[in-house]
Amino acid sequence: MILLFTDFGVEGPYVGQIKAVLAKRLPGQPVVDLMHDAPRFRPIEAGQLLAHLLEDVPVGSSLVCVVDPGVGGARRPLLMEADGRFFSGPDNGLLVEVARAARSLRCHEILWRPKRLSSSFHGRDIFAPALASQIAGKPIKQRQIASDSLVGWDDPADPARIIYIDGFGNLMTGLDDAMMEGVRVLKVGRRKISRARTFDEVQEGAIFWYFNSLGLVEIAVNQGSAAELLGMQVGSGVTLS
Amino acid sequence: MILLFTDFGVEGPYVGQIKAVLAKRLPGQPVVDLMHDAPRFRPIEAGQLLAHLLEDVPVGSSLVCVVDPGVGGARRPLLMEADGRFFSGPDNGLLVEVARAARSLRCHEILWRPKRLSSSFHGRDIFAPALASQIAGKPIKQRQIASDSLVGWDDPADPARIIYIDGFGNLMTGLDDAMMEGVRVLKVGRRKISRARTFDEVQEGAIFWYFNSLGLVEIAVNQGSAAELLGMQVGSGVTLS
Amino acid sequence: MILLFTDFGVEGPYVGQIKAVLAKRLPGQPVVDLMHDAPRFRPIEAGQLLAHLLEDVPVGSSLVCVVDPGVGGARRPLLMEADGRFFSGPDNGLLVEVARAARSLRCHEILWRPKRLSSSFHGRDIFAPALASQIAGKPIKQRQIASDSLVGWDDPADPARIIYIDGFGNLMTGLDDAMMEGVRVLKVGRRKISRARTFDEVQEGAIFWYFNSLGLVEIAVNQGSAAELLGMQVGSGVTLS
Repeated sequence: MILLFTDFGVEGPYVGQIKAVLAKRLPGQPVVDLMHDAPRFRPIEAGQLLAHLLEDVPVGSSLVCVVDPGVGGARRPLLMEADGRFFSGPDNGLLVEVARAARSLRCHEILWRPKRLSSSFHGRDIFAPALASQIAGKPIKQRQIASDSLVGWDDPADPARIIYIDGFGNLMTGLDDAMMEGVRVLKVGRRKISRARTFDEVQEGAIFWYFNSLGLVEIAVNQGSAAELLGMQVGSGVTLS
Repeated sequence: MILLFTDFGVEGPYVGQIKAVLAKRLPGQPVVDLMHDAPRFRPIEAGQLLAHLLEDVPVGSSLVCVVDPGVGGARRPLLMEADGRFFSGPDNGLLVEVARAARSLRCHEILWRPKRLSSSFHGRDIFAPALASQIAGKPIKQRQIASDSLVGWDDPADPARIIYIDGFGNLMTGLDDAMMEGVRVLKVGRRKISRARTFDEVQEGAIFWYFNSLGLVEIAVNQGSAAELLGMQVGSGVTLS
Repeated sequence: MILLFTDFGVEGPYVGQIKAVLAKRLPGQPVVDLMHDAPRFRPIEAGQLLAHLLEDVPVGSSLVCVVDPGVGGARRPLLMEADGRFFSGPDNGLLVEVARAARSLRCHEILWRPKRLSSSFHGRDIFAPALASQIAGKPIKQRQIASDSLVGWDDPADPARIIYIDGFGNLMTGLDDAMMEGVRVLKVGRRKISRARTFDEVQEGAIFWYFNSLGLVEIAVNQGSAAELLGMQVGSGVTLS
């Protein structure tokens, strides 16, 4: 199984082109849209989210990961094996959280370049075909690199930030259960936000935090938009108290 | 084939997580997005729509159905076989229209609970894995229940209501051909709406009703939005005259 | 592999119904969403875009193509083989650019009509099942037609126009490398637009054109919307100078 994790959005021909490229090289291989609204232009936060999504991704799967504001520039293209899952994507911090959490890890820089190489769509031109070749047992030209050479390796991402805002305006942070021990209240600016177990527990319009389905702290407003109410964006910080 | 019918929207990691769960348990099984903008928080209307979509769904298919505002609460999780199709979803009225229309029907309450059970995402945690286990021939713990114990069994949904609003603002009702015998005009408030066969038959900006591709009465404005013009929402009633 | 190219949008049950129809007739056949936001109601421009997307589509693939404002009217339904790829769709200009570019081409009018034939959804009722039958080796009733009888055959589409606007507001034209020889500046009204190689090369808010990942001239604003800035729509013309 191949999964796609991108910030392309669901509109446009971009996801379809990647799927066509994969199908050409791996006929019959199932391709799953993991998500296409990963935080746009924000590889660090997108990578934090990706790391938390892997629990549901079967070992042996492959993922094409593209949040790549530096496409066409000098950043390295990567192939990576982490705990039995295979990744391709840019070396810009997107894959580093997955790498740091892995017990077994091997990183390669993709040296191969295709005949047709656009300056704006390496998902189609490099990441998808390189991963497909790997899966097909015909690896393209690459060289092993040290994992601690990955962008962001020495600079762990702060979990006390918004890493994703969903269609309801719920604010997902990188904070998990263990980090919240002893914490009862989140602070955003001067506003204090208390915990509830579910949406049902609070009044309409009330703001609260809870552990979402990924086990992460999420700030929500019952039948409203926390993003609007707080004016927060992906990358904004929260305070524990 | 497994089909997904949800109100999750196409954004976010939610649909992707369900697909990953299904792929883990049923490698190679094709999964089709039937729709992900079923009426949000409105299981009754979503269920009316679902019942009308089944004509195109092959017998033998399985459907994960999630419109579940009571997730995390006390509502029963269901497995259901109706006329050779298999369903999993909440017992909140979502599946009752399908059940009532079935010639052959068997209903079970899912008793099994997974180790990881979030309070907000039973589609991933219960409905998808329970259905997948069933398909794989390893049914999870369940008990048969009487079909007339389903929520809504004794309270058929009114078809003279808006059950879905599409991206164009067209208003789909639950009314079909047989119910419209002798009816020429629909009334919404004081406004009278006449029938046309197609969009081409009416002037730009004119409102009309017609039988849509599901065979249902749909109110539309040629090159406009009936939803905006009439200020109607899912659940709003119409009058036949 | 079957690919879908439509203007249905990703919302609603429409794409799901087509997939269910295909799965019923061709179990196990992979179906890929090439795109579902082809220019709405604009078969000519959609067809220009489609022709440029084929480079990534494997020979031997089949495509259901639906941008069909005349659905329910008199336009002919087509089956077409062009350079080893198979297409079904309306004869309204949508497929003519592909046809004109083909080295080998065979065109048929679909004469078969299904028992259930809605007036608004021939993608589900005619185009998908006709193509599926063809693939399954059980072709439906059809007759060969001359390729020069296709709508638009004698009236090549002007490439110096906007053929697609993506979610960022980037304006894709039908102009390619060869057509731009000696051209340095595009003109839209009185505004002159210069070329850049990538987004990085220009200042925030600046407008420019570049060769996009399909090899086509695209007008963009760095971190802004060219569509908004210029007030252009699909079909609007540009001038080379």
